[in-house]
Parts: sequence; C-alpha cells; structure tokens
Amino acid sequence: MSTTPLRYDADGLTFCGQLACPDGQGKVPGILVFPEAPGVGPHVIRRAAALAQLNYVALAADVNGEGMVYEDPKTMLESIGLLKSQPERLYRRLQAGLQALADAPQVDPDRLAVIGYCFGGWCALELARTGAALRGVAVFHGALNSPQEGSASQIRGKLLVCTGAADPLVPLEQVTGFSEEMSAAGIDWQVHLYGGTGHGFTSPEAGSNPRPGFGYSPSSDRRSWAELRQFLTEIF
Amino acid sequence: MSTTPLRYDADGLTFCGQLACPDGQGKVPGILVFPEAPGVGPHVIRRAAALAQLNYVALAADVNGEGMVYEDPKTMLESIGLLKSQPERLYRRLQAGLQALADAPQVDPDRLAVIGYCFGGWCALELARTGAALRGVAVFHGALNSPQEGSASQIRGKLLVCTGAADPLVPLEQVTGFSEEMSAAGIDWQVHLYGGTGHGFTSPEAGSNPRPGFGYSPSSDRRSWAELRQFLTEIF
Repeated sequence: MSTTPLRYDADGLTFCGQLACPDGQGKVPGILVFPEAPGVGPHVIRRAAALAQLNYVALAADVNGEGMVYEDPKTMLESIGLLKSQPERLYRRLQAGLQALADAPQVDPDRLAVIGYCFGGWCALELARTGAALRGVAVFHGALNSPQEGSASQIRGKLLVCTGAADPLVPLEQVTGFSEEMSAAGIDWQVHLYGGTGHGFTSPEAGSNPRPGFGYSPSSDRRSWAELRQFLTEIF
Repeated sequence: MSTTPLRYDADGLTFCGQLACPDGQGKVPGILVFPEAPGVGPHVIRRAAALAQLNYVALAADVNGEGMVYEDPKTMLESIGLLKSQPERLYRRLQAGLQALADAPQVDPDRLAVIGYCFGGWCALELARTGAALRGVAVFHGALNSPQEGSASQIRGKLLVCTGAADPLVPLEQVTGFSEEMSAAGIDWQVHLYGGTGHGFTSPEAGSNPRPGFGYSPSSDRRSWAELRQFLTEIF
C-alpha cells in the first residue's frame, strides 16, 4: 500500500488530494473520501490508507484547493459559507475529485463509491444528488439536508448513513426527514443511529472538542467502520 | 449441529422450545430466540440452527405453552392480548425460557443474550427491562414501547434494533421516542433503519402478507443478519 499526492484542476484552481493504492496489479474499485471541513488532514489520509489495505483505491479528496488545511475555524467557516453560496462551484470541485479518481490507472471506473465525514459526508451526498455514477454513498456524521430540491431521485447508488443520536448538527428530525425523502424517491437506503454518540465520532482528533454533543466514540467508530466494510462488499 | 425439543415449566404450564446446539465440547454463549406471535415455527427454528452453526447454543423459546403454534389469527391475537393484560404472567414465561437456556449443559450461563422477531422482539426487550442478566438484546421488527414505565434503567446489556422504515407497527415516532428513552437511561444502543422495508422483513414466510408495509426483504434480512453476527462477536 502506498499514498501519493494527486493533483487535478477544476473551478480555476489546482487541487491536491492523497491517493492510496493497494499493492498488486489489476483494476479495483475506487472510493472517493471527502474530509471534514478543515481539509485533507491525518484522519482521512488514515482512512484512505485503511481502504487501500482492503484492496480499494481511495482518494482523500481536496475540496479547498491547493490541499489547504484550515487551522483557523473562522477562515474555514467563511470558506465553507462561500462554497455553499455558490453550489455550482462546489459541485465542480466534487465532480473533479471523482473524475481524478476514475482516471487513476488502478481504478475500475465502473465501480466507484464516495464516503465522507462531517462536512465531507454532506459533500458525498451532494455529489450523489448531482446524479454521479456511483455504486454507493456512505455518510459519517454529515448533515443530510440539501439545497438541491427534488434531487433525491438523481441518486444512482445505495446509501449508508452512520450518525450519532446526540449529534446537534444532525438532529433526529433531520434523520426522519431524510428517511422520508429517500423513501419517497425509492432509494436503497439505511441509517444507523448510535446512542450516546455525538458529532465527529469517527475521529480521535474530535476527542479534544469540549462542546457537548461533540467527540470521539471508540465503539461507534468501530461499529460504523464494520458497516462500511460490509457495505463496500455488498456494492462491489 | 442438532436441534432437540426442550421442555420447561412456568406459570402453571409446560413449555416446549427447540434447542439448537453446536457440535463439539465445552461451554459456549447461549442465545434465547423469541418467535413471532404465532409461536415456535420454521422461521425461528431455522434461526436457532443458524446460530448453532456459528457455535452458539440457541433456544427457540415457546411463549404460548405446550409449543402451540397458532394458525388462526383471531385466536392468536386473543392469546397475546391476554398475556399483555397480565404482564407478570408474561414475564414469568420469558424468564423461564432464559433459565431453561442457562441450565442447558453446553451453555455458559454468564454469557447470555436474547433476540426476537416481531412480537418476540418486543418480548426480548421486555425481558431485558425486567433486569435480566443479559450481555445483549437484538430486536428485529419488534415494537419498542413498554408498559414497564421507567424500566430502561433496568437493562443490563447492549441493544441492537433492526427495523424497517415502512413498518406500520414500528413508526418513526416510536423509534425516536425509544432513542430518547434509551439515551436518557445511558444504555449502549444502536438502531438500524432500513428504507423501503416493512414489518416481518426477516421472514420469507412474511412474503405472502399482502398488506402494505408488510413483507419479506431479502436485502434487509441479509444486512440485519450480518449486524447480528457482528453484535454477537462484540458482546461475547
């Protein structure tokens, strides 16, 4: 397994993701991994590497441009706010990540999935809502609402959502609304709801967040990772 | 693996379950399996056998007495209604099933769990709510509400709930209420919600039910069985 930077252009910018490839020859499924809002940091690079250990190619995708990782929360929120106010720019960035993955030599472009964490989980769903050719979408503690009205019917793959019941950014009403939206669109979806679990539960780095409803949960992290493995086996 | 009838007494009656044991020596964890309302029929006997293949001892437990399987829905509903109106009688029956399992020679009585389907899923939770010494409880399309007020705090094991989002007997509000109840009691719980899935989704026999919101779902059956295997590995 090896991880190398992968650069690609979109939206007038250059993006720098981290591509994790398994050892061995032959084409394998590709998994796009969208990071938390700060950018391509240690958490998603570890996840991409772990997926490569499972014999997938995984691209920890840059959404910020130039591989930027925001350290200052204010700058990060401004940057996200700007992207959310110009969704077409955001979609170009998400789609460019998927294309860069599909073009990687070891990737079978007919077998693609996207996963994401927090803001990246929301991005994964948004990409699917644009009608991208995906076998599956997995969201970990990401928001489930969308500015793309009526877009659920565009989704082409299966959905897995893993979320904490105590996550203030993904309240139970949002889960219920999402369930109804996806059911009405006839999507194959599943939501796994973990008790006593807050926002950012997959990331040890979230353990340092002192706000109520935020933090790392080793058991929910372990369970949701097992779900993802099962889900990937099912879709590929 | 072999399945044999197991008789035990409680509540002034004799009960007849089906005990599935793995081949081999030594004590292994025991799993109590509560059936759908009609009684110990082919579905739960198959489940118990499948659990024995995984090296657990599983007792498909009789709740009706004399191993009765109701064929007439009216008689069945009357019988359940009677039991629900006399909960202490029901609890004696559930507890007797657990004791019979714990007493089986191949069972390690310190490693017990309970699972159940439909009415049996509700029974599994009710047994846990009496404070039974369980490592885990898994409910498949069972009702989640209880007449035992404040009983969540009595639960001693971890909880896994697998339910269909289109199940009219377990509406989303019930799932939400349950989530809040279990969170408030500090229980380790997870709910897996399957889209496009109705009541009875684990049982091919439910495929013949023509009512909307009822029926077998091969994908949700497969997924929830994988969850159970994962859950049992975690608790034992």
